[in-house]
Amino acid sequence: MKLYEGFTPAQLIERKNALELKFEGYKNKNFNLDMSRGKPCVEQLNLSNDIYRQALNFDFISENGVDCRNYGIVDGLPEMKRIFAQILDVTEDEVILGDSSSLSLMYGVIEKAFNHGLLNSVPWSKFDRVKFLCPSPGYDRHFAICELFGIEMITVPMKDDGPDMDMIEKLAAEDEEIKGIWCTPIYSNPTGITYSDEVVKRFANMKTKAKDFTIFWDAAYIVHHLYEEGDRLLNILSECKKAGNPDRVFIFASTAKISFPGAGVAAMACSVENAKYMKKLISIQTIGPNKINHLLHARFFKDINGVMAHMKKHAEILRPKFEMVLNVLEKNLGGLNIAEWTRPRGGYFISLNVPEGCAGEVVAKAQEAGVKFTSAGATYPYGRDPRDRNIRIAPTFPPINELEQAIEVLCTCIELVAINKVLKSEA
Amino acid sequence: MKLYEGFTPAQLIERKNALELKFEGYKNKNFNLDMSRGKPCVEQLNLSNDIYRQALNFDFISENGVDCRNYGIVDGLPEMKRIFAQILDVTEDEVILGDSSSLSLMYGVIEKAFNHGLLNSVPWSKFDRVKFLCPSPGYDRHFAICELFGIEMITVPMKDDGPDMDMIEKLAAEDEEIKGIWCTPIYSNPTGITYSDEVVKRFANMKTKAKDFTIFWDAAYIVHHLYEEGDRLLNILSECKKAGNPDRVFIFASTAKISFPGAGVAAMACSVENAKYMKKLISIQTIGPNKINHLLHARFFKDINGVMAHMKKHAEILRPKFEMVLNVLEKNLGGLNIAEWTRPRGGYFISLNVPEGCAGEVVAKAQEAGVKFTSAGATYPYGRDPRDRNIRIAPTFPPINELEQAIEVLCTCIELVAINKVLKSEA
Repeated sequence: MKLYEGFTPAQLIERKNALELKFEGYKNKNFNLDMSRGKPCVEQLNLSNDIYRQALNFDFISENGVDCRNYGIVDGLPEMKRIFAQILDVTEDEVILGDSSSLSLMYGVIEKAFNHGLLNSVPWSKFDRVKFLCPSPGYDRHFAICELFGIEMITVPMKDDGPDMDMIEKLAAEDEEIKGIWCTPIYSNPTGITYSDEVVKRFANMKTKAKDFTIFWDAAYIVHHLYEEGDRLLNILSECKKAGNPDRVFIFASTAKISFPGAGVAAMACSVENAKYMKKLISIQTIGPNKINHLLHARFFKDINGVMAHMKKHAEILRPKFEMVLNVLEKNLGGLNIAEWTRPRGGYFISLNVPEGCAGEVVAKAQEAGVKFTSAGATYPYGRDPRDRNIRIAPTFPPINELEQAIEVLCTCIELVAINKVLKSEA
Repeated sequence: MKLYEGFTPAQLIERKNALELKFEGYKNKNFNLDMSRGKPCVEQLNLSNDIYRQALNFDFISENGVDCRNYGIVDGLPEMKRIFAQILDVTEDEVILGDSSSLSLMYGVIEKAFNHGLLNSVPWSKFDRVKFLCPSPGYDRHFAICELFGIEMITVPMKDDGPDMDMIEKLAAEDEEIKGIWCTPIYSNPTGITYSDEVVKRFANMKTKAKDFTIFWDAAYIVHHLYEEGDRLLNILSECKKAGNPDRVFIFASTAKISFPGAGVAAMACSVENAKYMKKLISIQTIGPNKINHLLHARFFKDINGVMAHMKKHAEILRPKFEMVLNVLEKNLGGLNIAEWTRPRGGYFISLNVPEGCAGEVVAKAQEAGVKFTSAGATYPYGRDPRDRNIRIAPTFPPINELEQAIEVLCTCIELVAINKVLKSEA
């Protein structure tokens, strides 16, 4: 469909003049708004302050008698492992806890794959080339790890029910250098979609040329529903076991956006064999993660029910923000055929596509008006969006009035860039 | 000097019989004592409980306005960096903080050296062979990292003022495959000695064939004095700078044995160039360490004076334990020429040498009586003490009455093994 379908050139010029005035008005307001990262807002952080109240009684002894202040337990405190086992629907011996960053657990698996090899595999450092499949738009920090390790990234398009599985199956079956894939399977970063059961099953069952092909399954938003009725993600570890590929997947999660991004608990889940192998390696790397933090979290949340009740409070804070963004987008851009966006039912992002070749310009223009969005292209391997059209909106952090301003500015910038494009092409 | 100098065979047999009775008596007591690891005792842990009292006011905002609950700051909270800068006598921009484990910072430098190379060096994974110098007895976990990475370990003898520098200088100057060395330079694990100024200067100035030869300077016990007048360690980073080798050293420390082993703050210090390079790599690995833990620690200790005052309280708990061990050793073994031991003025260990070929047997015998010591050989590369004579005593964890029992048992075991050795050789 044509951009601004139905508008005459004169109407477009009139509209453009009005938008330019509006834009100048925004500039004069000297905004300084940062919409670039998916950080929880202060009200969300406050929900978890009581974690530390538990420390008041100076009782640091775990359920099974471990003094959490002292050395010991390389894979994390059992009561916190149990909560993650419930969240991820796995057994406790399939869970390994870390410190606060799940990213560093992901990095750890990659680093170990390179240096020591994965279960029954050859260290990846022995290969001339290692490639990863990268469903995109995706999470920039996944791609940054690949770039650091010199892993060649192959962009795979995202669809409404997950990445393009035809392409993934074909490539993984053919190319032994393809060693893995990054996925954010529920409330995907940034498109907000959740992988269908069929997609999960195809991941579990597909043939891979590389025997140690590994799925990095970043379940960052596994309990991050915005609505009562949340998306449901099929359990990939179970499916991999059924398919006879139990060691194919590592699942990652953390309480970053449940408790505190800067001070939560991270976890990974995998087959018991993988967990044993990883624990052996991790026991050389560290004497153990922060067990007091595990203990305080476990006492605060108690179990999966505690987590789910807590996430409802997050949703109450976030839902109005997401809905407001969608309303402002619809109000300004609806029916113009110049942008499309996702309507996620959870997670941290709304993904926006503007006309091809315009995303960079739109983000730059917003920056000119004092509103910083995630760099255009950041959601693609090497920071390059081949169609230069995707913009990631992170509605969580700003107060709702600032958020509204930011999205109004964004809409104006999109229109200005799009209108100029149309006028140029018609000139 | 001869073992049991001046004893007649008859006297030895009489003594042996008495010892065997004593040993049987110990066995009947069904001890279950673990002397194997250098863990702080409960009284020491209690000294730091108030760290968490600071969290009570629910104020998680740092000096410079950072909300420590949220994302951000990959190299650690400034106020905690400042304390480590004071402890290590470096500048704040020479410090990088981690989570609780300094071991994982050490592992991180090794892993990065292999995968990405150190500053201006080639990734170590590109070499057929990498070797490390390992002053021994030393810390088993250092050696375990080498073993995991397939780094060939070269044992270097320890002297009273540090490792054998003649040997180190010669080997490092000749062999390009020698890429580094492990040191615990103050209150060394396990010998308890502190490197002399001359040794530190020779480390800073020595010629190395490998341009990226790296000193892993594990200052684990930098403020862990047992007496008012503590050992003093020359600042290696300053010396390296003076010598024109600023990038040669990484210094490691943590509050493991200041606050909590399982929940402290770890740090490393290095040249600003090294720090910049490492921060770039670490920023791909993690979004950041636990800043709330940094904040609580910083507020609790305030500055170096707070740390030193706190360490005096540790010393008051530990000094009687160390002195008791030394007294029991002297009382039982003094003048027999069958054992020698160190008299450290700080740190966590007493190092004991028994007659050659006897350490394994002594530790096994003690285990038979229900007292577990660190495995003989554990303090040497590959877990093999070439002279099988070193035993590491960790006096900190057990209550003092149990500690006394354990050392009495140890002395009896040493005598039994030594006496049998003498009687056999005279038979």
